[in-house]
Amino acid sequence: MGSSAAWKQLLLNAVESNSHLKHSSYFQLATIGSNGKPSNRTVVFRGFQDDSDNIQINTDTRTRKVEDLKYCPYAEICWYFTDSWEQFRINGSIDTIDASNPDPLKLQQREKTWFASSLRSRLQYLGPTPGIPSVAEETSTNPHIDPSAGPVDEFCLLVIDPHQVDYLNLKSSDRLTFTSTINSNGETLWNSEKINP
Amino acid sequence: MGSSAAWKQLLLNAVESNSHLKHSSYFQLATIGSNGKPSNRTVVFRGFQDDSDNIQINTDTRTRKVEDLKYCPYAEICWYFTDSWEQFRINGSIDTIDASNPDPLKLQQREKTWFASSLRSRLQYLGPTPGIPSVAEETSTNPHIDPSAGPVDEFCLLVIDPHQVDYLNLKSSDRLTFTSTINSNGETLWNSEKINP
Repeated sequence: MGSSAAWKQLLLNAVESNSHLKHSSYFQLATIGSNGKPSNRTVVFRGFQDDSDNIQINTDTRTRKVEDLKYCPYAEICWYFTDSWEQFRINGSIDTIDASNPDPLKLQQREKTWFASSLRSRLQYLGPTPGIPSVAEETSTNPHIDPSAGPVDEFCLLVIDPHQVDYLNLKSSDRLTFTSTINSNGETLWNSEKINP
Repeated sequence: MGSSAAWKQLLLNAVESNSHLKHSSYFQLATIGSNGKPSNRTVVFRGFQDDSDNIQINTDTRTRKVEDLKYCPYAEICWYFTDSWEQFRINGSIDTIDASNPDPLKLQQREKTWFASSLRSRLQYLGPTPGIPSVAEETSTNPHIDPSAGPVDEFCLLVIDPHQVDYLNLKSSDRLTFTSTINSNGETLWNSEKINP
């Protein structure tokens, strides 16, 4: 048992060894819809938050996943690395940080990930509402974004606080489960165990 | 609106155009655990059931997903094709067909997918219980399988009956939603609509 997350190093190694593939930063995020049924979509890894184990995702406040997370703030990531044949299943709670967040530190994190994303990514938030029937005229507009301008209202940062990680290596058939506990000092400790694939 | 599922042809085209990649038959399946939280894992596409729109997956009755599906028989597939940049999100209900199923036709389908899978795949069902702490001795056993023998008790067929499909093409930014309805003759009709990406 230790305070540093051993799974984080495994994950960083996988990110590094698969980095020649554009899709290696994509993973699937499962949530529960307000209809009580599972939903699942591909999202982009936006790095760990500072030196923590928390995983960042950017999204549009108008997407269904933001609605899902209001109903149930838990998610499971499934991240399969196609070159190294490694799978990480990471579950935990999600903090949804939009423009109305009362915490100045969280708003600062949101601003940081906004500026860390490309201009092309930022432009997406100026597009028409995702998931609703498309109106031909809207696609003809040519939105412009000021590179020095802060996040638009539609921009939302999702931060996953991992509780448990299931690691599977399909080449070696090794499988490990990592479980977090909080000690009496409020620190997170990670316990790992070898399990059957 | 039509009775044939236009999304099925799009999916078959994607399967075909990405078939040079081993991982193109892998997708992520989201379910809801008995703890009420989402879970998500990579599974292998085992084809459509006969001429229907139903999607087949093989699994071990001892995995957590089988337990999840008893609690909530709904799932969402997220299938991202890394070469053609297409995503299919397919949600629907799942029929879990194990050895105890009372329907002879379903048992026949289960047998069919058993024989359609490789000997190597079949051998996995003779391994130790997935997901529990591993015991070194168990890995030293060398199981043998008779190629003509029918499915073992641990073998389970999952059949997804799709209700809704969300298609996204990241190259063209086209996004379509396909929704099924049942008409007065009990036939499934699919309606498609272009939506914002």
